[in-house]
Amino acid sequence: MVHDVQVDDGVVRFTLALDGVRDVQVDLQEMTSEEKERIWPKKGQQKREPGAAEHLNNIGRVLAVMSGKGGVGKSSVAAMLAVALRQQGKRVGVLDADITGPSIPKMFGLSETPPMGPVGILPAETKSGIEVMSINLLLPSEDEAVIWRGPLIGGAIRQFWGDVVWGDLDVLVVDLPPGTSDASLTVMQSIPLNGVVLVTSPQDLAGMVVRKAAKMAWQMKVSIVGLVENMSYTICPKCGERIEVFGPSQAVHTANLLGVPLLGQIPLDPDLARQCDAGEIEDYTTDVFEPIAQKIADRASVRPGTPIF
Amino acid sequence: MVHDVQVDDGVVRFTLALDGVRDVQVDLQEMTSEEKERIWPKKGQQKREPGAAEHLNNIGRVLAVMSGKGGVGKSSVAAMLAVALRQQGKRVGVLDADITGPSIPKMFGLSETPPMGPVGILPAETKSGIEVMSINLLLPSEDEAVIWRGPLIGGAIRQFWGDVVWGDLDVLVVDLPPGTSDASLTVMQSIPLNGVVLVTSPQDLAGMVVRKAAKMAWQMKVSIVGLVENMSYTICPKCGERIEVFGPSQAVHTANLLGVPLLGQIPLDPDLARQCDAGEIEDYTTDVFEPIAQKIADRASVRPGTPIF
Repeated sequence: MVHDVQVDDGVVRFTLALDGVRDVQVDLQEMTSEEKERIWPKKGQQKREPGAAEHLNNIGRVLAVMSGKGGVGKSSVAAMLAVALRQQGKRVGVLDADITGPSIPKMFGLSETPPMGPVGILPAETKSGIEVMSINLLLPSEDEAVIWRGPLIGGAIRQFWGDVVWGDLDVLVVDLPPGTSDASLTVMQSIPLNGVVLVTSPQDLAGMVVRKAAKMAWQMKVSIVGLVENMSYTICPKCGERIEVFGPSQAVHTANLLGVPLLGQIPLDPDLARQCDAGEIEDYTTDVFEPIAQKIADRASVRPGTPIF
Repeated sequence: MVHDVQVDDGVVRFTLALDGVRDVQVDLQEMTSEEKERIWPKKGQQKREPGAAEHLNNIGRVLAVMSGKGGVGKSSVAAMLAVALRQQGKRVGVLDADITGPSIPKMFGLSETPPMGPVGILPAETKSGIEVMSINLLLPSEDEAVIWRGPLIGGAIRQFWGDVVWGDLDVLVVDLPPGTSDASLTVMQSIPLNGVVLVTSPQDLAGMVVRKAAKMAWQMKVSIVGLVENMSYTICPKCGERIEVFGPSQAVHTANLLGVPLLGQIPLDPDLARQCDAGEIEDYTTDVFEPIAQKIADRASVRPGTPIF
């Protein structure tokens, strides 16, 4: 039974009263031109097809960075991975799938609205030449809230994949939001991922949530490249003491539990926070991340990957 | 146009092809008994009404803890707030609205499945007597993934409000997930909040995302109690140096920008992480949080609040 149908500024709202139904999943689609012609026979104008850019893109590997739990530094790991791969000479893009908490543009100091090309949106480009697409580039101001329910979030992510002119890329890094709900589901269902990199922090609590993320990846049949532990420790700038600010590491335990390789441990470095805030993550230098990026690149290229399409 | 209708284990899936529609919002409801009788005239069995517990509950104040960005310690602030209010002798409950990354039960060392009473689910009780409801208490194991789209997430949150026998509470603390999508929307639309406490970390990046959360609260007409900065600094256990691990604080700047009071700054303390992991947050002692909890309680009781119903 359908109640309370309202149409308000392009949003259709209704209540479905059902029995024995746990969930309703609606995929919102543009009508096909045949369908439109059936309804409005006169309206036959030509229009750019959604997803047109996708057929022109040539993307070698798609790697998602996922954590389950927020704030473990997933976005900075995604950004550092992109920077490290770019420094190796690869053509790299970053698709920011964190629609409600996008942090990629700020880290790279990007704020200009990407231009619209004939077949789709052209991604922004960082100073070292990394292509970036994020909802924050499309908002009137960076602290504008995106108060959307799932179908719109999914639509934006699908557009970032299908309507963005990525061109030729060796690697596209997808920065997933926390959680195992709409955004992660849409990425895993609509984008042919070659693998996911799991990011955790030393807390057992974060380990618990990353195990949820791993279970989701298994259920969605996406390969796990490995686990990165972030914020493992910090070094006292005065006395050099190694301080485990989030308690002792659980990374080896978590990696063993999941049966995935531990790719490395990254310390908590105030310089990284500062350079992220300043939009200069490309200038951040660390010896720690290089071997991690190498391991990710090696494993992602050795593995055949499991495209989902 | 409705395509591809599938019904699979209680989940209805279909594709809507529309024109000029940006979003579809579906509220899933149980049919009323009249509606059921219209469809199955013979099926007239008595059944517990959903939301029955709500009418028996008597909850003084409902405070949501929100951050926008994940991992800034929102859940530990929510838990510490509940503990501090409980220590003042108040009757306190915690509703964990973070369905895909719930961390409240682990912090309190709770794992038993809550029993079902005649009018609804009975919340779990911590050793100091705080009532807790979380999806993790209902899962077969704590690291099970909840791979749900928005309508199911919203349904679970509405059940935690309407179908849980909270009884008489002075304060119900709602722990919101990161982001401004379904879970936060459902809480703000379906639960009569008296205010939200915003939690941020020193990074400007976290500040940006918490400003998104504040804008959402304004748009949803929910009062903001104030801002708490978490992880402001850590103290070197060897030399006593104060280290700003996430860079210099942006809290005063963010609070001024939002025009809300800065309620306090909480240091990053490895003991807190350890006691959260051990399920002993109630035994964690700190002088820092007491005045913050007091300010929150004072402001929440002075303000009339803006119930949304």
